[in-house]
Amino acid sequence: MKTIGIDIGGTQLRAAVLDENYNIIDIFKTPNDRSLTCRENCDKLIDFICSQNEEFSGIGIGAPGPMNMKTGTILNPPNLIGWDNFPITEYFREKTGLPAVLNNDANVAGLAEALLGSGKGYESVCFMGISTGLGGAYVYQGKLVNGANGNAAEWWNMIVNEDPYGHKNANPGSLNEQAAGSGLHAIASRIYGQETHTKELFDRYYSGDATAVEIIDRAVDVLAKGIANITCVIDPDIFIIGGSVAIFHPFYIEAAAKKAKQYMNFPETLHIEPAKFGDDAGLIGAALLIETAKK
Amino acid sequence: MKTIGIDIGGTQLRAAVLDENYNIIDIFKTPNDRSLTCRENCDKLIDFICSQNEEFSGIGIGAPGPMNMKTGTILNPPNLIGWDNFPITEYFREKTGLPAVLNNDANVAGLAEALLGSGKGYESVCFMGISTGLGGAYVYQGKLVNGANGNAAEWWNMIVNEDPYGHKNANPGSLNEQAAGSGLHAIASRIYGQETHTKELFDRYYSGDATAVEIIDRAVDVLAKGIANITCVIDPDIFIIGGSVAIFHPFYIEAAAKKAKQYMNFPETLHIEPAKFGDDAGLIGAALLIETAKK
Repeated sequence: MKTIGIDIGGTQLRAAVLDENYNIIDIFKTPNDRSLTCRENCDKLIDFICSQNEEFSGIGIGAPGPMNMKTGTILNPPNLIGWDNFPITEYFREKTGLPAVLNNDANVAGLAEALLGSGKGYESVCFMGISTGLGGAYVYQGKLVNGANGNAAEWWNMIVNEDPYGHKNANPGSLNEQAAGSGLHAIASRIYGQETHTKELFDRYYSGDATAVEIIDRAVDVLAKGIANITCVIDPDIFIIGGSVAIFHPFYIEAAAKKAKQYMNFPETLHIEPAKFGDDAGLIGAALLIETAKK
Repeated sequence: MKTIGIDIGGTQLRAAVLDENYNIIDIFKTPNDRSLTCRENCDKLIDFICSQNEEFSGIGIGAPGPMNMKTGTILNPPNLIGWDNFPITEYFREKTGLPAVLNNDANVAGLAEALLGSGKGYESVCFMGISTGLGGAYVYQGKLVNGANGNAAEWWNMIVNEDPYGHKNANPGSLNEQAAGSGLHAIASRIYGQETHTKELFDRYYSGDATAVEIIDRAVDVLAKGIANITCVIDPDIFIIGGSVAIFHPFYIEAAAKKAKQYMNFPETLHIEPAKFGDDAGLIGAALLIETAKK
């Protein structure tokens, strides 16, 4: 039976119809309109679903955290203004009569990469998405490990070194503040003494700027320690790494993988592959929530 | 049906008969005699098993790593001289006709604490044993997570800070080298300029020695970061902490737990309990391997 995958983003909302093999066969995109309530925004997606005149097995929803996965409630994500404490699965269920499941956007993307991408067939898959922030998913035996409080695979906040700077929402010494886009942006801006975006930092790196090389080398080390640390907790069969920073700068991941081996007792076991689905992962993974939630 | 639990240690070998409720109803202990081969040493345990004249569901074996859990082979543990590449489960199977399963000693102890100790009833349990070394187990949905290469829950090697000293078998900045007994022994000996055992370090700490307070405070911070880092990977329902250092110095764990909350996004979710079974965990957990291996 076909399924609906929904991706709730700060700027855009997407709904897709997926066939039995999780191919996207129809898609609807609309801005997340701040002049509307969250329910009115969702009504646009619900209209799309109802206009299909088809039977669906359910609706899977990916959205930014924090959230209560068990009750299907969005809590207070900083980039979803006006969606606080919104019981989104209940709303979709009431309006469509379909079962609905909620999980966070990184988990959902990782589920797609794990079950249908490079992780296919493996028991234990670690997904890491490196964009502005650094997200993750841990898929074990075909299902997401959410953790006791929905906070598993939140390794953006993992501490790997000492860092004299305080950060608003993350630990000093954490992966997010030192290896994700936002962290690199802050570090480069501080060191260069002027606003320096991540793209510009990488441009300087490619042109051989010594300061940029130093910043990126340190970020590579941070990422390497993060990978090694995750390995010594869950020892996955495979790491899948995606996200815009990873996609635009593959050397960054390759360098981190090489260095991670120095921190591993069994370096030959490290297996890293790039993500496959790009933006579609959020829709495919959301659709996969329905089937995997039943198991 | 009754089960056999075996604990292979560097100095002692133990075999126990456990009833259906995993109570130890008979136990046999013998030195790990270096003048004998590993097979001859195991024969002493096998004689005990065969002398029982009972039916058993199988033999669970806990031993120091590294090992190949899938083939049931002990590889090259530094404290098991003469046991290199010993296919121990095959040997027990051939000699007794019973199924046999091998896992590492920390995993086995954690399995007992998770299924029959404070972890009972929880989906996701993290066990940490802090003695000379720092071991662990991750029990999820009633079974050990061994990882793709048997290296899950090996967080003794997790990196949490920068550490100018190299170590023979562990990462600089790792939990083991900064928070376990062997690491504290090395740090204290270096700082005091003379051999200083962990017990003496703690004695000095209790008497208010400023250097000892500084060393232990740093170790508490390391342990706190380790706990927070594990949380952001697997978000367990409960941490169970055992091992001689934890048992003799409960303030050490309490201080680490308090500090770990500073590094967590949802500090109220941290739940830590002491281990219950002491030395018996190795035998009880070994016996539990048989039943959980079937699931």
